[in-house]
Parts: sequence; structure tokens; C-alpha cells
Amino acid sequence: MEIASILITGANRGLGYELVSQFAAAKPSPDFIYAGCRNPDGADKLKELAQKHPNVKIIKIAIGDESSYQTAVQQVTQDVGDRGLTVLFNNAGILTYRSFEKVTAEEMRKEYEVDVIGPLMLTKAFYPLLKKAADNSKDKGLSCTRAAVLNMTSGIGLISDNTSGNIYPYRAAKVALNMITKSMSIDFKSDGIMAVSINPGWVQTDLGGANATLTPTECIEGIRNNVMAKMGEKENGRVVKYTGIINDY
Amino acid sequence: MEIASILITGANRGLGYELVSQFAAAKPSPDFIYAGCRNPDGADKLKELAQKHPNVKIIKIAIGDESSYQTAVQQVTQDVGDRGLTVLFNNAGILTYRSFEKVTAEEMRKEYEVDVIGPLMLTKAFYPLLKKAADNSKDKGLSCTRAAVLNMTSGIGLISDNTSGNIYPYRAAKVALNMITKSMSIDFKSDGIMAVSINPGWVQTDLGGANATLTPTECIEGIRNNVMAKMGEKENGRVVKYTGIINDY
Repeated sequence: MEIASILITGANRGLGYELVSQFAAAKPSPDFIYAGCRNPDGADKLKELAQKHPNVKIIKIAIGDESSYQTAVQQVTQDVGDRGLTVLFNNAGILTYRSFEKVTAEEMRKEYEVDVIGPLMLTKAFYPLLKKAADNSKDKGLSCTRAAVLNMTSGIGLISDNTSGNIYPYRAAKVALNMITKSMSIDFKSDGIMAVSINPGWVQTDLGGANATLTPTECIEGIRNNVMAKMGEKENGRVVKYTGIINDY
Repeated sequence: MEIASILITGANRGLGYELVSQFAAAKPSPDFIYAGCRNPDGADKLKELAQKHPNVKIIKIAIGDESSYQTAVQQVTQDVGDRGLTVLFNNAGILTYRSFEKVTAEEMRKEYEVDVIGPLMLTKAFYPLLKKAADNSKDKGLSCTRAAVLNMTSGIGLISDNTSGNIYPYRAAKVALNMITKSMSIDFKSDGIMAVSINPGWVQTDLGGANATLTPTECIEGIRNNVMAKMGEKENGRVVKYTGIINDY
């Protein structure tokens, strides 16, 4: 899979870090791997990776602070120019695990801000660069090698799979993110930009906890090999599991 | 259908007003019909209705202002006491019709506040009264005559029906509301409180516009006779159309 450039948010830890790390080690590796994080100064693991791989660029993206999106767009534009940005991977997210009894309005707001409004506004900011990538690609149709927005969702955000209730902020935000993915997939189709929600499964990260069934390495290998390398028109707008299987909604 | 008491938000216009109006005229009519609205002083049509039907009580509920929820709970408690509140109908909502190019973070926030966080927090406030209604009902199982939370959703909030993209704030909020309904239906089941999202169809209101296919009268007759009077365990947690048909997600 030859992806010319990719930007990953929430790249300082968990699945975001693993994505950057695997793309850095890939052969061929993208020309530019933007590792977006809130606080580049404190991102020690990313700094190590960037020293070893000069195509890894640490970039400040503070979800919720739209001015940081514009600065990031300028920085990426300087590198990629008319080639545009091939993949925007909206990976940054939080998990507020709150019951009906305990959930507050403020927890609902914060989760929606990070998991839904952030990806939407960041995609708006990078849309002109994604469009350039699609326009100038030798590929036709829809693919991650032409141009794509990938939104990291969760099985917890599937209404039909909700058999245990609870987790109000996260469930509501992730299903809303899946809806936004669907609208993007329709609105971007004539531009040649794909939009897909990716369900990473249950992964051993800070967010998934130690009892999870997958290691970050297994999960991201699945997302790269089974999902990103293979999907096209059929998966556009859908929720796709790390195994490559469509599972919604 | 004998519903002892019902509270309807957004009752000063559109489907909310029609709900109050039809329940007021019903035989038997509920003992208490609470018509929740942001500004009772300006609710002239509701005032007329309340003069004619003494069981219609206008009550201030300003979605987003949680202190108004507590005052409303106190007011309802004084009337119903241990009989509790039978049905909470979260009908108040807004429709922000915004494209990808035009949508702003603030529009996303406002829609989520009114259409998702409002119903959730209002349901939390009235939960003890709903539980009392369920506990003290002669009915067993799940029904609108025992105890129910009904959330007014929209076909625009169904991801699988989204074939035209766009409308980001409203689509995202309504599907999130459907998720919350699903979690409530699971969390409340042992209490005997039903939770259902209701899809009213496309109705000639301020929100639906003049080209809509249904009159408010037809829509609310459908919701009362096909949905509220009939549904039970099977519909719990689902999206039910005004026709009585389950259609999700």
C-alpha cells in the first residue's frame, strides 16, 4: 500500500502512536507521516521515533482549539504542496465511562467536543488538501491511496450491539461520529475522497485496559492490512472492523 | 389507553402542542397533562387550552437550564405524589440544517445540547417519579400506561437511511439520542420503565416545512394510536415510526 502522506491525531499514545510507528517502519513508508498531538514538547516517544525516521513530523493539534488546526494545515501545505494530504486519520478520542445515575451534562459535552466536533472541524480544515490529493492521484475510484478520512470509532458506538446500556457520553458520541462519517462519504464522493469509520476492536491501551483481547500491534496490523490496503467503494461511509468486515450500526 | 399523567416538552408549538391538544381532548384524558415550554408567559395557545381543560398544566422547562428541571419536578410531585409520572415525552428539539462547508462547531454544540443532553438530563430529573409510576402501577411488563420515556427522533437520524449526506448537526444529534434511548431501555428495564425513540415522519410544522407529507393531527393520531397504545417489550429501546413499525438505525 503506497500512501503518500498521512496525518494521525492523538499520536502520542495508544493506537495513534502504534499507527505512526508501523507506518514509519513500513516499506514503502509514506513521504510524510504527521503525528498530531496536543503537546509536542512532552511527546518523548514520538520524538525518538522522529529522530530515527525523518518522514515522521510531530505537529501540534489540540482537539477543540480550531486555531491549532489552521496552523497545522499551513505546516502540512508547506511540505506537500499540490500533492495534498492523502489520509486524515481522526484517531484522538476520550472514553468517559458513565452510568445513567452518574453522568453529567458537562461529561456529555466534553466527549462530544473531542470525539465528534473535533474530527468534523479538523476534516473541514484539511478538506482542501484532501481534495488536492484526490485530484492529483493516478488512482481513480475510492481508496486510501487516493484520499481518505478515517474516523476511529468503537464497537461501543454500535446501537445494535448495545446490550449492556450505560456509558452514555462515549456511546452517544461514537454513534454520532459514525453518522458524520456517513454524511462525509456522500458529500465527498464526487471529489474522490473516501470516508470510513474504523472499529479497532478491544485493544490493550490506556483506553481499552489490560483485559482487552488485542495488542496495539495486532490491531494496527489489521487496520493497515485488512482495512486500509483493501477497502474501496463498498466500505465507503460504513463502520469497518480491524478485520476488514463491515459491521454497523 | 389510560395514561395517568404525561409531561411533554416543547409543548408550545408543532408536534408538542398537538400532543397536548389531543391528550386534552381524549376520553379518558390523563389526570395531568404537563405542557413544558421555555416561556409559559408567552404561550398563548397553551393558555387557551389550559383554560378549557383544567388537567392541562403549563410548566416552565427551559432545555439546557437544569435548575428549571428541578423546579418542574417539584411542581409535578405536588400534584402526583406517590402515583409518580407515567410518561415523559422528550419532544423539544431544534433542526440545524447545515452542510459540511457551512457547519460550525457552535452549531454542533447547540444542537447536541438541546436534542441530546437536554432529554438525558431531564430524564435523570424525572427518573424517581417515573420509577414511582412503574412501582405503583397495576400493569406489569413494559407499556406507556405503566411508565415510559419517549424521545422524539427523526428519520434524518437513521444512519442506514442517510443517502443524501449533509445536515450534520441534526443527523449527529438524533442518532446520539437513539443511542441514549437504547441505553435507557436496558438500564430501566428492571424498573419497569420503557424507553423508545419515536420517528414522527415528515410533518407540516415549523420544523418540517410546508411540503411535508403529514399534518400534525395525522402524525400525533398515529403516535397515540399506533405507537403509544400498542407498544411493549418488543419495541423497547428501538426507533418506532408513527405508523407503529420499528425502523432503525
